[in-house]
Amino acid sequence: MFTRIDHVGIAVPDLDASIAWYESTFDLRMVSREFNEEQGIEEAMMLVFDGPTGGSHVQLLRPTRDDSPIGKFLANGGRGVHHVAYGVEDAAATLTEIGGKGIRVIDSSPRHGAMGSSIGFLHPKDTGGVLIEVVQAAARP
Amino acid sequence: MFTRIDHVGIAVPDLDASIAWYESTFDLRMVSREFNEEQGIEEAMMLVFDGPTGGSHVQLLRPTRDDSPIGKFLANGGRGVHHVAYGVEDAAATLTEIGGKGIRVIDSSPRHGAMGSSIGFLHPKDTGGVLIEVVQAAARP
Repeated sequence: MFTRIDHVGIAVPDLDASIAWYESTFDLRMVSREFNEEQGIEEAMMLVFDGPTGGSHVQLLRPTRDDSPIGKFLANGGRGVHHVAYGVEDAAATLTEIGGKGIRVIDSSPRHGAMGSSIGFLHPKDTGGVLIEVVQAAARP
Repeated sequence: MFTRIDHVGIAVPDLDASIAWYESTFDLRMVSREFNEEQGIEEAMMLVFDGPTGGSHVQLLRPTRDDSPIGKFLANGGRGVHHVAYGVEDAAATLTEIGGKGIRVIDSSPRHGAMGSSIGFLHPKDTGGVLIEVVQAAARP
């Protein structure tokens, strides 16, 4: 079902500072930086490893508004890791399969994610307190 | 510096139940289950992906005593993700390199981790609130 750990999503108050810190401390390279207004975030993807089934990244997430999920997470004292995302071949089919096992899915059909991906979240109340995302990467040219 | 996301460490109160849940929900396969008395944990490694630079896993962590780091994490209301671990070629050299950049390292020299690995943790106060581990896998036979 899972082809990789696609990313670990980390909530940060200052995106420029966090990008610079991951670059200088761990030599990670930024491969994408974009706004997602639907989610209320500006995000940067820092590449850890580019493997045969796709990349593994640290995803740095800065809220663009206080009432976004990441804005609330930081406002409520949340620090660091916000969610874990696993790569899949087919996000729609995976969400249907997992939903069929009685796990509540936040997204019953995929929505737009970073770098042209299709994503969906599972409900943390059904996953042991971990916010889990599935990611279908955009087709490579 | 990093060769992969080696694992995401997740604190769980009931290890058997969590192993069964990750197996049945996501078809992950357990590749290791062991006690680490020094860390006060029983842990299971669930394989997500086995790549050319090593495996990526979900690490399920159950405390074996209340005063262990994972025991305190759960007792203080911590849920889900406890730390993020990155694969490296040489844990000792990486800890020295990162420590030389002014990041406090909890382990100035590596200690014993799962599956014969050598591991070390960085101080979360210097890493944006994320407990980060570096992992040098045991040599493959």
